[in-house]
Amino acid sequence: MTRFFVEPEQMRPDFLVLTGENAQHAKVLRMKSGEQVLVCDGQGEECLCTISDVSPGQISLVVNKRQLSQSEAALAVSVYMAFPKSDKLEHVIQKATELGAYEIVAFPTARCVSRPDEKSLKKKLERWQKIAASAAQQSGRGRIPEVMALGSYREALERTARSDKAILFYENERATTLRMALEEGEYRSVSLLTGPEGGLEEQEVAQAMEAGLRVCTLGKRILRCETAPLCALSAVMYHGGEF
Amino acid sequence: MTRFFVEPEQMRPDFLVLTGENAQHAKVLRMKSGEQVLVCDGQGEECLCTISDVSPGQISLVVNKRQLSQSEAALAVSVYMAFPKSDKLEHVIQKATELGAYEIVAFPTARCVSRPDEKSLKKKLERWQKIAASAAQQSGRGRIPEVMALGSYREALERTARSDKAILFYENERATTLRMALEEGEYRSVSLLTGPEGGLEEQEVAQAMEAGLRVCTLGKRILRCETAPLCALSAVMYHGGEF
Repeated sequence: MTRFFVEPEQMRPDFLVLTGENAQHAKVLRMKSGEQVLVCDGQGEECLCTISDVSPGQISLVVNKRQLSQSEAALAVSVYMAFPKSDKLEHVIQKATELGAYEIVAFPTARCVSRPDEKSLKKKLERWQKIAASAAQQSGRGRIPEVMALGSYREALERTARSDKAILFYENERATTLRMALEEGEYRSVSLLTGPEGGLEEQEVAQAMEAGLRVCTLGKRILRCETAPLCALSAVMYHGGEF
Repeated sequence: MTRFFVEPEQMRPDFLVLTGENAQHAKVLRMKSGEQVLVCDGQGEECLCTISDVSPGQISLVVNKRQLSQSEAALAVSVYMAFPKSDKLEHVIQKATELGAYEIVAFPTARCVSRPDEKSLKKKLERWQKIAASAAQQSGRGRIPEVMALGSYREALERTARSDKAILFYENERATTLRMALEEGEYRSVSLLTGPEGGLEEQEVAQAMEAGLRVCTLGKRILRCETAPLCALSAVMYHGGEF
């Protein structure tokens, strides 16, 4: 079923109106009165609706049912990725959204080559959020993951502490596997932190351990910085019973 | 440690010589006598060597130890992917190699938009194999996955039957999860088959079931055709105890 995202404050219990890009999209799809659509607030709630009227630039809907999204993961997984080079972050945002990430957080580390300045960051964040919205729509999600950028590695470590389980992946770790970390205790939220192209510095890994993060391996092969978070996210979703 | 791939017939028990691209690469890295390197046959065997002489276009090595590669997965996982549009197959070859795939097999299905002709296929296969070789080197693998293209969907189904377990992912499957399929029986090889952008046709899925493939879901979210094989491969490697 076609799904449209609206702002949470636009959600109504009885009637809804789609305008702007949503109305345009419905026109492209040649949608007609009587067809059913899903309208999502992007935060996990959705309305099952029937189209009652199609006018230029405006689609009127009758709400049949309001429900929690059926396609969100049981576990809230946050993807923390050090700023990578070129358009790799865009790639990870798109894929992580498909794979069900709760949010995507970029942050600087010592070996980050690319670190957007304040001015370009604002534009980039808008672009990144659009990529997440588009991927959420295509993959049938009820939630658009928030994409954010933090100012320091320290901030990233502090923020991961808010989740029930925080894991850092380090290529020099051999003993502790992701499975070991996931099999410990009860949790509803997980943070997965990965480094940039050049890897994390030893001292940064020590800092993370002090902050309470678990340091794990992703196996014997060295993964690229854009492969590691998606591999880890896939495994966590699999472990959590998603598929 | 830097690793070089040579043809299997170039492997020797006592002395080795690197020439061509390998010698060039060693020059770029400014390698010197006394340094240790790994020389791999690309099929899972490797020699731990010490550089004994650096000449223009030729690096001489003393073999210290011959061993099975330490970085190959215990499970041989074959990735079967329907021909996708544009350069998505290149992306999947690179990532699947990093993630430890045993081989990557492309094949046509009814809804494949892109289907390379005989002539362009030969060139493409050379290019694809190079991408796999480069990713194997960078990720520290001892084996270069073979990349191949089959002429028909039927051939793909028949070939998957040679592995101990063959799984097809279908977005309309709800009941059978990947975990269910992986928890059944003993196996040393797994084939993972995914469809093109438009998905597999119902009749193709029925055909696969007849051929003995297990039809599984990858969860409630619709994954893009280039995301699905990598998500599945990550999960299978995780299930197999790789990380």
